[in-house]
Amino acid sequence: MLDARPVLVDVLPAGEALEGMTPSTVLVSGPVMAIEEYHGPQRDAILHAAVHEGLAPDPDRAWELLVAEEIILGHTLDHGCVGSTTGVHTFSTPVYRVEDPETGVRAHCGLYEFGTRLGLSFGVYDDEIRRRLHRLEEQVAPALGAAVRTAGGIPLLPMMSRALRMGDELHSRTLAATHVLARTLMAPLADADVPDLHRRAATEYLATIDPLFLRLSMAAATVIATSGHGAAGSTIVTGMVMNCRSFYVRLSGSDRWFGASLPKPRGRFFAGFGVDDVVWTGGESCMTECVGLGGMAQASAPALLDYHDGSFDDLVRHNLDLYSIVRAEHPELVMPALGFRGVPFGIDAELVVQTGLTPLIDVGYAGNGVGQIGAGSVRAPLACFTKALSGGVDAAHV
Amino acid sequence: MLDARPVLVDVLPAGEALEGMTPSTVLVSGPVMAIEEYHGPQRDAILHAAVHEGLAPDPDRAWELLVAEEIILGHTLDHGCVGSTTGVHTFSTPVYRVEDPETGVRAHCGLYEFGTRLGLSFGVYDDEIRRRLHRLEEQVAPALGAAVRTAGGIPLLPMMSRALRMGDELHSRTLAATHVLARTLMAPLADADVPDLHRRAATEYLATIDPLFLRLSMAAATVIATSGHGAAGSTIVTGMVMNCRSFYVRLSGSDRWFGASLPKPRGRFFAGFGVDDVVWTGGESCMTECVGLGGMAQASAPALLDYHDGSFDDLVRHNLDLYSIVRAEHPELVMPALGFRGVPFGIDAELVVQTGLTPLIDVGYAGNGVGQIGAGSVRAPLACFTKALSGGVDAAHV
Repeated sequence: MLDARPVLVDVLPAGEALEGMTPSTVLVSGPVMAIEEYHGPQRDAILHAAVHEGLAPDPDRAWELLVAEEIILGHTLDHGCVGSTTGVHTFSTPVYRVEDPETGVRAHCGLYEFGTRLGLSFGVYDDEIRRRLHRLEEQVAPALGAAVRTAGGIPLLPMMSRALRMGDELHSRTLAATHVLARTLMAPLADADVPDLHRRAATEYLATIDPLFLRLSMAAATVIATSGHGAAGSTIVTGMVMNCRSFYVRLSGSDRWFGASLPKPRGRFFAGFGVDDVVWTGGESCMTECVGLGGMAQASAPALLDYHDGSFDDLVRHNLDLYSIVRAEHPELVMPALGFRGVPFGIDAELVVQTGLTPLIDVGYAGNGVGQIGAGSVRAPLACFTKALSGGVDAAHV
Repeated sequence: MLDARPVLVDVLPAGEALEGMTPSTVLVSGPVMAIEEYHGPQRDAILHAAVHEGLAPDPDRAWELLVAEEIILGHTLDHGCVGSTTGVHTFSTPVYRVEDPETGVRAHCGLYEFGTRLGLSFGVYDDEIRRRLHRLEEQVAPALGAAVRTAGGIPLLPMMSRALRMGDELHSRTLAATHVLARTLMAPLADADVPDLHRRAATEYLATIDPLFLRLSMAAATVIATSGHGAAGSTIVTGMVMNCRSFYVRLSGSDRWFGASLPKPRGRFFAGFGVDDVVWTGGESCMTECVGLGGMAQASAPALLDYHDGSFDDLVRHNLDLYSIVRAEHPELVMPALGFRGVPFGIDAELVVQTGLTPLIDVGYAGNGVGQIGAGSVRAPLACFTKALSGGVDAAHV
C-alpha cells in the first residue's frame, strides 16, 4: 500500500471503463441488499439513475424492473469503482480512471455533479439536474478526458501531498486539491483537441465545483487500499464503506464485508436543519480514511472547525491518538502542523479491537430529498472490526 | 484600514500606470539613497534595469547616467507602487493595478518574473532573463490584463481570506492564493479577446509560477495600509520597508520614514548556502505584515516549518503574542487554527515601544548574483519605532 502511486489516466463512460458493467446495471455504495431494504436517498437515487439511464420511463416502472431483476444492482467495489454518497453509477456515467502504472491496480469514481450539492447522487432528480448531468456526460467529461490524456496522466500522490500542506484532509476538505488539479489541467485543457464548447464547459467545471477532487481522492485511496488487499491472514483494513443500513469493513485477508450499525452523527448543520434530519445514504468516501486521510488527518485541516466543536488542539490530539491503531506512517502524505509527520497509515483491526479506538471518519450529512444538510465526523463502529477479526457471521449478510 | 476592499482591476505598463513615472526613472524599494550607497543585488538590479529599459547600453554607462542624474531613482511608494526585493520598476515594467473602488486608493506592483527565482528583481540579468522579461511584458501581462478586465475586476480580500484557510500567510507562502487566482482567471482568460499566443503564455504563467500572488498580496496590503495613512497624530504603522542599508517604518501621522539597522537573518538555507551568504537587497513585501499577514499570521501556515526551527505550537505562541502590539483584529482575514480569530491588525508604534515586542516578518533571503538562497523570519528593529514616536532625526536621512 505504501508503494502505490495512483495516476489519473482518463475519464470514460462507466460502461466502457468498468469490468462486468452492463447496460442494465446500477452500481451502488456498499454491499448490495435486496431492493426492498433500500430507503430514503439511496433508494431514490437507484430509481432515478435507472430513469436517467433510460432503463425505465419513471421511478415506479424502475422499481418493478428492479424487483423483477431486469435491472441489476451491483456493488461499486466489485466493479473496480467507488461510490460517493448513494454511489449510483450507470452505463453512461462518466468516471475517472485512476491506476498505478507499476501494478496495474485500478479504481474508478464518477465525477462530482455539475451545479449544486442537490443532485442525483443525493437521490434528487428533476429537469434541471438531468440537463446538468447531460452537460457533464457530453461536454465536460470528454474534454477532461482529452486534457488528462494530453497531459500524459496526472500523478495524484504529489497533488495530495501538496494539498495536505494547504489545509485539506482530502475527504471533507478537498478544496486545495481541487485548485491544484484545476491549475494543473489549465494548459493541457487549452492544448487538447476538443470542441470549444466542451473546453468551455470543462473550464467552468474546474473553476466552479469546489469539492470536485473528492472523487479523485476516493479513487486514489481505493487504488492504494486495493494494492494491499488479498494478503492471506492480514488484519489490515482495506475497505470501509456504508450502504443506507450498515457500516462495513473488509480486511486484507478476506473478501468478506463485515457490517454493524451505522454510527451516531455528530457535527454542524446548515440553517434550517438538525441532527434529526440526517438520513444515511450509503457512501464509500471513507475509503480515504483507510489510507490515513480524512478523519485520520484532521491536523492538516484546521478549517474543519467550521463543522466541529472544540479547538484545533482537540483535532490534533484526536489525530495523534489514531497512531495507536495503525502500523505505519505514509512518507509522502505528511502533515505540516505535526512537524511533517506522515499520516497514520495501515489501520490494523487487531489494534482497533485491542485499544477500543476506531477510525475517525469525516462525513457530509444528507437529508431526504434536500441534498447535503451538514458535515462533521463519526467513529466507525467497533462491532464490525470485532466481527471481522473473529470471522463471525455477519447478520446483514445472512 | 479595516474597511479597505482591494480589487485587482488591470495590468498595465508602469509608465502608463504610475503617477510621476518618466521614461528615465528607475524605482527601487525603500527610501532613495545616493547611488553610491547602493551595493550588491540592489545596485546590480538598478544598473541592469536601466539597461533592460534601453536607457544605457551596459551597466557601466548606466552608472555614469545615474551619477549624472540623467537616470533618476525614485521610491516606489512615492509613485503608488510597492517593490519586491530590490523593487526595480522602469517605464515598461508591467504592474498589477489594485484599487479600492470606494475610496479610489490605489497601489501597483510589478509581476513576479517568468521562470526561475533567478531574475532581474534579484539583480541578476542575462540573455535568458531578458527574453523571459520580454515574454512577460509583451505576451503575459497584456493577456492577464485583458482577463482581469473581462472578469470585471477581481476582489482580492475574499481570495486572501480563502488562502488563510489554505495554509498561506500571504507573504512567504502565497501558494494557495496563487492557485485561487489561477482558477478564478481560467474562464475570463479563455473568454478574453487576445491572441492565442498571449493566452497560452498567460496560461503557462498562471499554471507554473507558484509565488506569483505575492505581488498581489503586497499591492493589496499597500492599498489597505495606505487607506489608514495620514491621520494626524496617529501612531499606527502604515509602512515597513527596506533598502539595502536600512529598515524603515512610517506612521500614519507623518510622511517621514524612520530607519534603523537591518535585522539579523534567521531561517533555513538552500543546499550550498548559509547565513553568511545573505545580502540584503531591499524589499517592501513587509507591507503585508503592516496589515496582519506574513509573520503576523504564521498560525495560518504550518508549512512555514520548512524554514523555521521549532514546532507549530511555537508559531502559534509567537502569533498570539503579536496581539499585544495591535489595536484590532481583521474580521475577514481570519485564521482557522486560532478558532477563526482575525489576524492581529493595526500595529501601534506606542504598543511596540511599550512592550518591546516588534513585528515578526517573514522573509526570503538573497545572495550576491545567485537569487534566492533561503527563507525564514526576522524581528523588525525596535529603534525605528522609538525614533518614529519621538519624531527624532533619522541618521539615514541626514
